[in-house]
Amino acid sequence: MRPSKRQNDELRPVSLERGVSRHAEGSCLVKFGDTHVLCAASLEERVPGWLKNTGKGWVTAEYGMLPRATGERMRREAAAGKQSGRTQEIQRLIGRSLRAVVNLQALGERQITVDCDVIQADGGTRTAAITGAFVALSDCLAWMETRGMVKRDAVLKDHVAAISCGIHQGTPVLDLDYLEDSAAETDANFVMTGRGGIVEIQGTAEGEPFSRAELDALLGLADAGIRQLVEHQKAVLGA
Amino acid sequence: MRPSKRQNDELRPVSLERGVSRHAEGSCLVKFGDTHVLCAASLEERVPGWLKNTGKGWVTAEYGMLPRATGERMRREAAAGKQSGRTQEIQRLIGRSLRAVVNLQALGERQITVDCDVIQADGGTRTAAITGAFVALSDCLAWMETRGMVKRDAVLKDHVAAISCGIHQGTPVLDLDYLEDSAAETDANFVMTGRGGIVEIQGTAEGEPFSRAELDALLGLADAGIRQLVEHQKAVLGA
Amino acid sequence: MRPSKRQNDELRPVSLERGVSRHAEGSCLVKFGDTHVLCAASLEERVPGWLKNTGKGWVTAEYGMLPRATGERMRREAAAGKQSGRTQEIQRLIGRSLRAVVNLQALGERQITVDCDVIQADGGTRTAAITGAFVALSDCLAWMETRGMVKRDAVLKDHVAAISCGIHQGTPVLDLDYLEDSAAETDANFVMTGRGGIVEIQGTAEGEPFSRAELDALLGLADAGIRQLVEHQKAVLGA
Amino acid sequence: MRPSKRQNDELRPVSLERGVSRHAEGSCLVKFGDTHVLCAASLEERVPGWLKNTGKGWVTAEYGMLPRATGERMRREAAAGKQSGRTQEIQRLIGRSLRAVVNLQALGERQITVDCDVIQADGGTRTAAITGAFVALSDCLAWMETRGMVKRDAVLKDHVAAISCGIHQGTPVLDLDYLEDSAAETDANFVMTGRGGIVEIQGTAEGEPFSRAELDALLGLADAGIRQLVEHQKAVLGA
Amino acid sequence: MRPSKRQNDELRPVSLERGVSRHAEGSCLVKFGDTHVLCAASLEERVPGWLKNTGKGWVTAEYGMLPRATGERMRREAAAGKQSGRTQEIQRLIGRSLRAVVNLQALGERQITVDCDVIQADGGTRTAAITGAFVALSDCLAWMETRGMVKRDAVLKDHVAAISCGIHQGTPVLDLDYLEDSAAETDANFVMTGRGGIVEIQGTAEGEPFSRAELDALLGLADAGIRQLVEHQKAVLGA
Amino acid sequence: MRPSKRQNDELRPVSLERGVSRHAEGSCLVKFGDTHVLCAASLEERVPGWLKNTGKGWVTAEYGMLPRATGERMRREAAAGKQSGRTQEIQRLIGRSLRAVVNLQALGERQITVDCDVIQADGGTRTAAITGAFVALSDCLAWMETRGMVKRDAVLKDHVAAISCGIHQGTPVLDLDYLEDSAAETDANFVMTGRGGIVEIQGTAEGEPFSRAELDALLGLADAGIRQLVEHQKAVLGA
Repeated sequence: MRPSKRQNDELRPVSLERGVSRHAEGSCLVKFGDTHVLCAASLEERVPGWLKNTGKGWVTAEYGMLPRATGERMRREAAAGKQSGRTQEIQRLIGRSLRAVVNLQALGERQITVDCDVIQADGGTRTAAITGAFVALSDCLAWMETRGMVKRDAVLKDHVAAISCGIHQGTPVLDLDYLEDSAAETDANFVMTGRGGIVEIQGTAEGEPFSRAELDALLGLADAGIRQLVEHQKAVLGA
Repeated sequence: MRPSKRQNDELRPVSLERGVSRHAEGSCLVKFGDTHVLCAASLEERVPGWLKNTGKGWVTAEYGMLPRATGERMRREAAAGKQSGRTQEIQRLIGRSLRAVVNLQALGERQITVDCDVIQADGGTRTAAITGAFVALSDCLAWMETRGMVKRDAVLKDHVAAISCGIHQGTPVLDLDYLEDSAAETDANFVMTGRGGIVEIQGTAEGEPFSRAELDALLGLADAGIRQLVEHQKAVLGA
Repeated sequence: MRPSKRQNDELRPVSLERGVSRHAEGSCLVKFGDTHVLCAASLEERVPGWLKNTGKGWVTAEYGMLPRATGERMRREAAAGKQSGRTQEIQRLIGRSLRAVVNLQALGERQITVDCDVIQADGGTRTAAITGAFVALSDCLAWMETRGMVKRDAVLKDHVAAISCGIHQGTPVLDLDYLEDSAAETDANFVMTGRGGIVEIQGTAEGEPFSRAELDALLGLADAGIRQLVEHQKAVLGA
Repeated sequence: MRPSKRQNDELRPVSLERGVSRHAEGSCLVKFGDTHVLCAASLEERVPGWLKNTGKGWVTAEYGMLPRATGERMRREAAAGKQSGRTQEIQRLIGRSLRAVVNLQALGERQITVDCDVIQADGGTRTAAITGAFVALSDCLAWMETRGMVKRDAVLKDHVAAISCGIHQGTPVLDLDYLEDSAAETDANFVMTGRGGIVEIQGTAEGEPFSRAELDALLGLADAGIRQLVEHQKAVLGA
Repeated sequence: MRPSKRQNDELRPVSLERGVSRHAEGSCLVKFGDTHVLCAASLEERVPGWLKNTGKGWVTAEYGMLPRATGERMRREAAAGKQSGRTQEIQRLIGRSLRAVVNLQALGERQITVDCDVIQADGGTRTAAITGAFVALSDCLAWMETRGMVKRDAVLKDHVAAISCGIHQGTPVLDLDYLEDSAAETDANFVMTGRGGIVEIQGTAEGEPFSRAELDALLGLADAGIRQLVEHQKAVLGA
Repeated sequence: MRPSKRQNDELRPVSLERGVSRHAEGSCLVKFGDTHVLCAASLEERVPGWLKNTGKGWVTAEYGMLPRATGERMRREAAAGKQSGRTQEIQRLIGRSLRAVVNLQALGERQITVDCDVIQADGGTRTAAITGAFVALSDCLAWMETRGMVKRDAVLKDHVAAISCGIHQGTPVLDLDYLEDSAAETDANFVMTGRGGIVEIQGTAEGEPFSRAELDALLGLADAGIRQLVEHQKAVLGA
């Protein structure tokens, strides 16, 4: 039995709330149970240096956590004077995941930065962030479409969402919360598109190595879970 | 007429929502109109080095802004590698304001850090932060009282709240929003206790210097405004 | 009785020595008793990015303390790798105070930086710095006038000076030295113009909150003190 | 045909040279073709704070690249003042991979740091680093065994090695060099043990998402490649 | 003819003013012509970690320049967030030079830090700093002797002073000012003791290499110059 | 007798291996006994800002040490977030030494950076680095000559090499290894050209000051040692 009483293939309650920021061109407050991430997409009319005069744009992400998003207060990264290796790893992952479904040529020479800030953490913050960031990005593109800048559907090639799976007390389970995550023997994050293509897979044995059979089981759980997340995205985006 | 149609002595709608964080010992989401600040109080069983073995505790604060809390996205301080002078000024002010109503001896050798993170900004973030941080601090002390660690009322000597005032188009007005703040000739922040004592006053002439008469007018507005804020605090704290 | 035997409304001996730097366009060694600050104004033919092509100039300040300016040696900020929050707060205040009496349009697209370095500290370094920085700035503008770049009197709209006041053992007193500052219940800094307008007021209750009556008393002391400082400035500048 | 004329399942020439550092307790210069990484294991009689008095030790890794290890000179990280996100990601991966085969209890309260410095880069530096770091670690433990500190075989639970695979021009291939890596549609790194358990898998779609069938093909290549690498390790370690 | 009309072996006017800091245990304002350096010695009852429980003390130095000590304003190192390579080189040199004449055992487990801050620069700041720092250090030890902590003459083994020499327009000259320093073909700094021993020699060819004969000529000038500086030290210290 | 059994005027075995880097325009692995430094010259078609549009180029150097190049592991400078004072001192010395034999006008507006990374240290890393960096620089210029960019012999005015000497147990000796360096009373580094001109001399008394006679003895040793190093350079460069 999982600590949360969920079925092995059961997501936590998912909520995607659009338009939560007065200022951002697109925004989404995503909740996977008690994990809450505020995603805000900002449009800028400039691109990184290496893209100047290429006609192509850029989509990137930044990630942060409020100091008391977690059970123990963590040191504020701005006060520490740098972002941790973990933070950088996660924001690079979010950026790659979004770019996997974006036609940068169709975006034109502009940059969209999606800030993903964890308001409350209970495991799975990076997967919630990717799932919510897609909604914020989509709304930013819709905002641009309203102003005649792009066609959203020309820029977005597909949906993208993410979920974690793991082997907990010998059993493959979907969408680990913090309690399960801390105890899992194996922890894997999957990023997939609406059509089921794999964008990113990151699996780590925390204790014993895992087998191909176990990896297959996790992939199966993730595939089903991400399909549900994409349905949530479609429902909330009215698409 | 003010851009927001408010009376000169009228606060924006104020909301103080307690218990918004699953993890923090005390928390409050404070809203002054469209300015939203999440305040989370964290208790730690340690004190800064200079207080060791004095029997006294410490209350401090940290302040941050989500990058897209503002109209234009600002650079993330963690990515920039340091906190701005403005950020440091504000978090020092919040800490001093809270300590003004705390009996550090009664707290004992413990530290409470109140994180004030601006989720959305529309002027007056520091005054909202102080007003909300008091509620988070009070709830943290109540949490401690439940565990027999302190008596809240022995630690808290009074209420404390803050508001900005300014001279806008020649007229003294209360609780500036961003539009007014940008255009104000004079901008002042007041921190006062529930009994009407002044804890901190910071007035700055943005354009022409101001006179003692103008300062008196601002003080009068602030005094009345802070009384209302303290009433809000009392109402929500059930005290 | 004050530790220094001064009257409650008595300044420490004030000295403003011009032309102390061989290199700077304007300079002043200001002494408020044992507090000594070297102020050096540097002219540069460039402005911050946001002022380019606006026809307007900029006046800014930087503040520092020699490590053994104080009773206990402090860590050198250059070695620590950053300026403290206190340092940033003070240099921002000096810059704002100077700009309050400068016509940036008349200055033209140039920047003047006034470095205020505390050689020896005995309380009131920021108010001495503002008072001396005005003299350095005035001499820098005179240097420019000699070269036909500006008219000093078109750039400088007024004099500006600053003083601290506080409530010490229940009594409002003027120009706190370090001993009084450490023991004061309330500590306030005032920046005012030659015509008596208030540029900045910063009052902090270190212990008990203060009342409006007390604030009024401090304002009265400051007003008289700053009038004397401006007379000193006029005397030394021969204006 | 691959640019290097290799078969799709063919490793580059692999070389593992032990004892290349006069000072380190264990060292290995690993070459995967033109990718050369110097791995040096250092023993310290201390552990990170969170392990004190637990009886358990720690194994960690640091990664760096000489500035001209690459085709274009890269900025020296020490001069830039920080390690890049990529560097941190890689060194965290190396450390996790080594710990997957180490019994930290049997190591005792000591720390082994394996420095992996890329002398020359041609793709696959992280996988070469893991493969060589294992040899350096093994020799460090042998050095300790000679001194009666541990039994190497009690500390090392298995071998560990790593390889990259990718989909290049539609074909799954093993051990990408720089040319292939730059052009690959999908790029994946696998870390596996001598017994074939998966320690870590990181797959990224650079262009189009990949399918489960493609992931299976890459896994098959990696499995065979890592078996060969482990044979190399055994041969050179004489085990 | 030298720009300053001095003879080739003529020092600039030298001044060593003791007791210029109200707070420091020893202090000296040293002037070599227009080069002015404030040296302040601070005693601390602690030593660096590697000296703990050895019974030995430590003497170290820090060096800084006010931003407008020079003809062009330089960026403040505290604002830049780090000390330049030049600054570090100089402060290491000052520390080594002082330690060459100190018996660290006789000092006992204490640290003396001599801060050398350049108030105005006109070439030769490091040599002036060493010469003045010795006076500040001597006075700090005298202060300690008064309190029965050490015998100054047991700690100080000799005097130490420093001077620069260079080859200017083909001629060896003593004590370069900024104009000469900028144009010199060769620039050398010498640190010597009162008994004529060499503590440090640093010679650099700025243009053409120099010969042993030229080095000998510079050594001869330095030797005579430093003898005069030591006489100045003795005169001012009354020894 | 020296610990290494060498004669007082005997160099350690010297080796200069060219072309060790696949990517660099010029490279050299230099060995002075157990001190091994990898020198890699990188050409860039840009110059520092102050040389733009002057027609002149620049030659500079960077220096680093692998963390376990030494007997005890040192903290990685990239992880510490800054280069030590020692590192900066050395890389500035290497750059000055190379520029002493380069005609920057003949180089044209280009920059050559020579990275000197210590793979293994046993004393004398800076002198080995200078000696090897000259070879890497020469090969970089030969590479450029092949492409018609410069004439090597028009850019290189002479050879340059460096060696350390010291007074060890009262005797002047050449080319100190780590054991001797740690115990030497005096330690000096000499940089000289092929024609015997002195480029740089840095002598430091670690214990007792040294005399002019001792300096002369060290100079004599260095002169003979550098002549041998230049012969090594000529032999390996085929010049």
